[in-house]
Amino acid sequence: MDTSDNAVLLARREGAVLYLTINRPEARNAMNAQVLEELIATFEAVAACPDVRAVVLRGAGGNFCAGGDVKDFVRLRRQEAAPGTDPVAAFNRRFGALLELANSVPQAVIVLAEGAVLGGGFGLACVADVTIARNDASFGLPETSLGVVPAQIAPFVVQRIGLSQARRLGMCGGRFNGAEAYRLGLAHFVEHSDAGMAAREEQVLAQVMRCAPGANAMTKQIMLAVGSEPLGQVLDRAATLFSAALSGPEAAEGTQAFVEKRLPQWAAAGNVETGEADVR
Amino acid sequence: MDTSDNAVLLARREGAVLYLTINRPEARNAMNAQVLEELIATFEAVAACPDVRAVVLRGAGGNFCAGGDVKDFVRLRRQEAAPGTDPVAAFNRRFGALLELANSVPQAVIVLAEGAVLGGGFGLACVADVTIARNDASFGLPETSLGVVPAQIAPFVVQRIGLSQARRLGMCGGRFNGAEAYRLGLAHFVEHSDAGMAAREEQVLAQVMRCAPGANAMTKQIMLAVGSEPLGQVLDRAATLFSAALSGPEAAEGTQAFVEKRLPQWAAAGNVETGEADVR
Amino acid sequence: MDTSDNAVLLARREGAVLYLTINRPEARNAMNAQVLEELIATFEAVAACPDVRAVVLRGAGGNFCAGGDVKDFVRLRRQEAAPGTDPVAAFNRRFGALLELANSVPQAVIVLAEGAVLGGGFGLACVADVTIARNDASFGLPETSLGVVPAQIAPFVVQRIGLSQARRLGMCGGRFNGAEAYRLGLAHFVEHSDAGMAAREEQVLAQVMRCAPGANAMTKQIMLAVGSEPLGQVLDRAATLFSAALSGPEAAEGTQAFVEKRLPQWAAAGNVETGEADVR
Repeated sequence: MDTSDNAVLLARREGAVLYLTINRPEARNAMNAQVLEELIATFEAVAACPDVRAVVLRGAGGNFCAGGDVKDFVRLRRQEAAPGTDPVAAFNRRFGALLELANSVPQAVIVLAEGAVLGGGFGLACVADVTIARNDASFGLPETSLGVVPAQIAPFVVQRIGLSQARRLGMCGGRFNGAEAYRLGLAHFVEHSDAGMAAREEQVLAQVMRCAPGANAMTKQIMLAVGSEPLGQVLDRAATLFSAALSGPEAAEGTQAFVEKRLPQWAAAGNVETGEADVR
Repeated sequence: MDTSDNAVLLARREGAVLYLTINRPEARNAMNAQVLEELIATFEAVAACPDVRAVVLRGAGGNFCAGGDVKDFVRLRRQEAAPGTDPVAAFNRRFGALLELANSVPQAVIVLAEGAVLGGGFGLACVADVTIARNDASFGLPETSLGVVPAQIAPFVVQRIGLSQARRLGMCGGRFNGAEAYRLGLAHFVEHSDAGMAAREEQVLAQVMRCAPGANAMTKQIMLAVGSEPLGQVLDRAATLFSAALSGPEAAEGTQAFVEKRLPQWAAAGNVETGEADVR
Repeated sequence: MDTSDNAVLLARREGAVLYLTINRPEARNAMNAQVLEELIATFEAVAACPDVRAVVLRGAGGNFCAGGDVKDFVRLRRQEAAPGTDPVAAFNRRFGALLELANSVPQAVIVLAEGAVLGGGFGLACVADVTIARNDASFGLPETSLGVVPAQIAPFVVQRIGLSQARRLGMCGGRFNGAEAYRLGLAHFVEHSDAGMAAREEQVLAQVMRCAPGANAMTKQIMLAVGSEPLGQVLDRAATLFSAALSGPEAAEGTQAFVEKRLPQWAAAGNVETGEADVR
C-alpha cells in the first residue's frame, strides 16, 4: 500500500486496531477503481491477520464516501467491450465483492459515517458491525435519479434495515440524516459532535477488546449463516464451534480470569503495540 | 373495468400515476370476490404498462379496507365441493396471488392507510412500497378471534415487520393505531389530518418521479430477490442489471442531465398526461 | 416433574395457562443441565397438550435467567471424551433443541424478563411470542468475554432483532436494559414496576384467550415457515390450513358468535379450570 500522503487509502495500525481512511477529500472520497482495489486488498490482508481485532473505517475531510463517480459512469458507458465480455458488469460485481468481504471479515468493523454517506459509501455503512453516525450526515441512494441502479448495494440494504424500509428508500431515492439512520437501525449510534464521535469510537473499541477475538469471530460467522442455510444445520455447526472454543486457549484464560476476578489477557492487552500498518 | 359510480374499484389516471379506490364504503371496503378479481386484473395490467410509474391505492369513505367479510366465511363454510377439489383453499390462495402481485409490480405502490386496515387490508398495507398511515387508523388481524386464520397475510407480515413483532400480533390478535404502525415499521409515515395525508402523498409521488422508472423497477426486483436465493447469485444478476442500465437510455439522459445541471426528462415529465385510466 | 419446593422448575396450571418458574434463585436461575432437561421435557409435553393455550415463563427471586454457569464450563473443559464423541457439542446442541422447541410450540409463550436475562436466558427471551421486560432488566451476551461463544443463541438473536443489531451486540458483548430491549424489538413491552409487569401479563393473556387456539397455532406455524421455504410454497400450504380452519369447529363457533354478537366459547372459557400442572 502506498503510505505517502497521496495514497487514496491511508492505513495506521495501533495495537490490535487498524485505522483506515479513504483519502480523496477533493471528491468527497468517491470510490473510484483505485479506492475499490485498495480496500479489497486491505480487507483480504486483514482477514488473514488475527493480530488485528478491529478495523475502523472513515473518510478524510469530513465526508465518509460519496459513492461512485458520475465521470466513471460516463466513461464506462463509452467503453467498447470485447465480444462476449461485460466489463461494466465485472466492475460492478467487484464492488459487491468488497461488500461481501467487509461484511464477513472475522474482525469487528466500525464505520464512522459523517458528511456524505452515499451510494457505495451507504453500502459500506450497511456491512459494518458497528456504524456510528453524525446526526447531520447525509445518507442516500442517488443512483436511480441518475438512471443507474444501486445494484450491489441494494441486497445489503435489505439485510441491514429490512425489506420494508429498503424498498421505500429504493423507490423514493430519498436522502436522510444520521438521526434517521439511527431510527432505521442502519446506524447503531448517533452523535452530535466530533468529540461525541471520538468518544463513541473509543467506547466501542474498548467493548470489542473485552471480547475474546476468536470467540467474536465465531459468533460473527454463526450470525452471518442465518437465513442462508437451514436453522438446524446452523445450530449443528454452532455446537461444534462451541466445543472447539471451550477446549481452546481463550476459554482456559477466560474462565480462569473469571475465577481469579481479573481481566483476561486479551482485555488487558488490547492496545499494546503501536506502529505503522503492516497488514499487507 | 366498470367505471360507473357503482364500480367496486375506481381507477383514475393522471400522467404517470394510477389512482385506485376500493369503493364499497358501506362495507368499509371489505374485500369480496369481486374486489379481489378487479384488483388482480388491474395490477396485472399495470405490471405490463411502463407508462404507469406509480399506483396509489386507497379506500372510499374514510376506511382503507376492513378485510374479508364474515358473511363470505359463512357462505364458504356451507358450500359443497366436488370430490378432489378445495374451492375454499383456491379462493384463499387467490388472495395470496393478489398480495404477491401487488408486492412485485415494477411500479412504486403507495397505500393510504386510514380508518379500518384489517385482515386483507392489513395485508395490502404490508406489500406497498410506501405506506402512509393516519395516526387514528385501526390496524389489526381479527381472523383468529373468529376462528379463522390470516393465512395468506401472515407471511407478508413477517416480511414487513420481522418475525418478533409478527408473532406477537399473530398470537394476541391485537389492534393498534397508525402511530404504532409507524413505530413497527409497517407504515413509513404517520399523519394527523387529511391535509397531512395529501401533502405526504404528493411529496412521495414527487420523490418517485425524480427516479428513473426502469432503474426503480430493477432496484425493486433486486431487493425482492434477497432471502429467496443465495446472496452471491443475487449480486451476480444485479451486476448484469447494472450493466444493462448503464448502457440504456435512462443512464444516457441521467448522466447528461447531471453534467448539464438540469432535471432529467423523467423528472420533468412526471405529471404531463391526465385522463381516464386506460391500463386495462 | 418434582413439584416439591426444591424443584428447579416449578409448574402451576390455571385453566388454559401453564405458569413455569425457573427455581434456582441462589444462582440467578442459571441454566444447568437439570433445568435444561426439565424445560425440554415440559415444552415437549405442552406441545402435545391442546388444553394448554399459553405458557408463562419466569424466574424465581427477581431474575429471569443468568445463562450458563461458569463452573459448568470449567467442568466441561476437563471432562474426558470417548474417541469419536463430542459430549460438549452434544450438550450445547441440546440447549439449541430447547430454543427450537420453545420457539415452535403451538401455544403462546410469554416470557417475563426481569433482573438478569443473560446468555441462555437471553436466548429464551428471543423465542417467546411475547416478551415483557422490566425497564431495569439486564440483558446481555457475556459469553465472548469469557472466551466462549453464544453458539446456540446467536441464530435466534438474528431472527429476533435482525442481523444489524445482532452483530453489533455480538461483537461488543454489551449489556443493555429493558428499555433498550424494547427499542430493539427484542421485548414487546417494557414496564417499570412489579404491578406493571403483572398487569401487562394479565392483559396479554386476555388477548391470547380471545383468539381461537387452533387458529393461533396455525398462524404461528405459517409465520415460522417464512424464510425457510419459498414464499409460494408457504402460501400454498397456508391456503390448505385456511380451508381446514374454515371447515372446523372453531370457525363454526366464531362466525356464529359474531352473528349473535356474543363472545365465542374459547374467549369465555379461558380461565375456568384451576389446579396443579399435569402436562407431564
